[in-house]
Amino acid sequence: MLVMGIDPGLSRCGYGVVRQKGRVTEAVAAGVIRTDKDDATPQRLYELQIELADLMDSCQPNAVAIEQVLFQVNVRTAMGVGQASGVAMAAAAGAGAEVFEYSPTQIKKAVAGWGNADKDQMGRMVQTLLGLNHPLKPVDAADAVAVALCHLAHRPAASRIQAAT
Amino acid sequence: MLVMGIDPGLSRCGYGVVRQKGRVTEAVAAGVIRTDKDDATPQRLYELQIELADLMDSCQPNAVAIEQVLFQVNVRTAMGVGQASGVAMAAAAGAGAEVFEYSPTQIKKAVAGWGNADKDQMGRMVQTLLGLNHPLKPVDAADAVAVALCHLAHRPAASRIQAAT
Repeated sequence: MLVMGIDPGLSRCGYGVVRQKGRVTEAVAAGVIRTDKDDATPQRLYELQIELADLMDSCQPNAVAIEQVLFQVNVRTAMGVGQASGVAMAAAAGAGAEVFEYSPTQIKKAVAGWGNADKDQMGRMVQTLLGLNHPLKPVDAADAVAVALCHLAHRPAASRIQAAT
Repeated sequence: MLVMGIDPGLSRCGYGVVRQKGRVTEAVAAGVIRTDKDDATPQRLYELQIELADLMDSCQPNAVAIEQVLFQVNVRTAMGVGQASGVAMAAAAGAGAEVFEYSPTQIKKAVAGWGNADKDQMGRMVQTLLGLNHPLKPVDAADAVAVALCHLAHRPAASRIQAAT
């Protein structure tokens, strides 16, 4: 079972690919796709589309989990993040993966145990769950891995048992 | 000069391709891309991406003009429209077209002469500007043509003179 988590964004879009086999969960790939703030938004969205499609083509994830975009923080930023999440969703569907969305609170609850966990706590839990010696950097990549781990935690028990055999 | 206007949406995405040669402006193509409300959002965004890319490939517009998404009305709907606009922008950049965004007020001002024009007034102005015997239907297609006409009105005088020769 290979899950790609995505923390969508126009300037920085985090991705993290996690493999679960039996009780072992490991990070296969993690990083950040960056686009240039000086470029026009359509060009940046197109670059994001191409890079995500390439990543999905090379990793072939069974599922793609995307962090849901909320509008509480900043409407101006949320628009870019929403557009980036649209491009990411289309890329995932185009790659034939099942696509899931999780809210920030769901992700924090699943990974750190409570919905108000801060960045540091989330980073440490990602490190622990993957058995890493150091926290995963940059933070957008760690956030994306957390989305993938959230999906694994939300999968029905039946499919986890199936994946373990 | 071939301009494709897009009125982005997840359930209905209007498009209208307008050609301007000298003083003559004509509609080349107009219609609506619909996606099934029962399908998952990523699948719908992917279908929109494919249909828009096909359209742009067959029409080869010089410019794509997209109606800007505002958040005043309904945050839940705006998210889908924002995601659809992201997919449309990426498709336009991928097709090598220049991409422009116009606010609903800019479009109404450019086409009907004032920023508070209603749907009927906009429909009649689109009909008049294109010299049609009947209003263009469906309304999403007429809205998209209005975005394209708005772009033609906003082009600098220099490039209009160049296009007319």
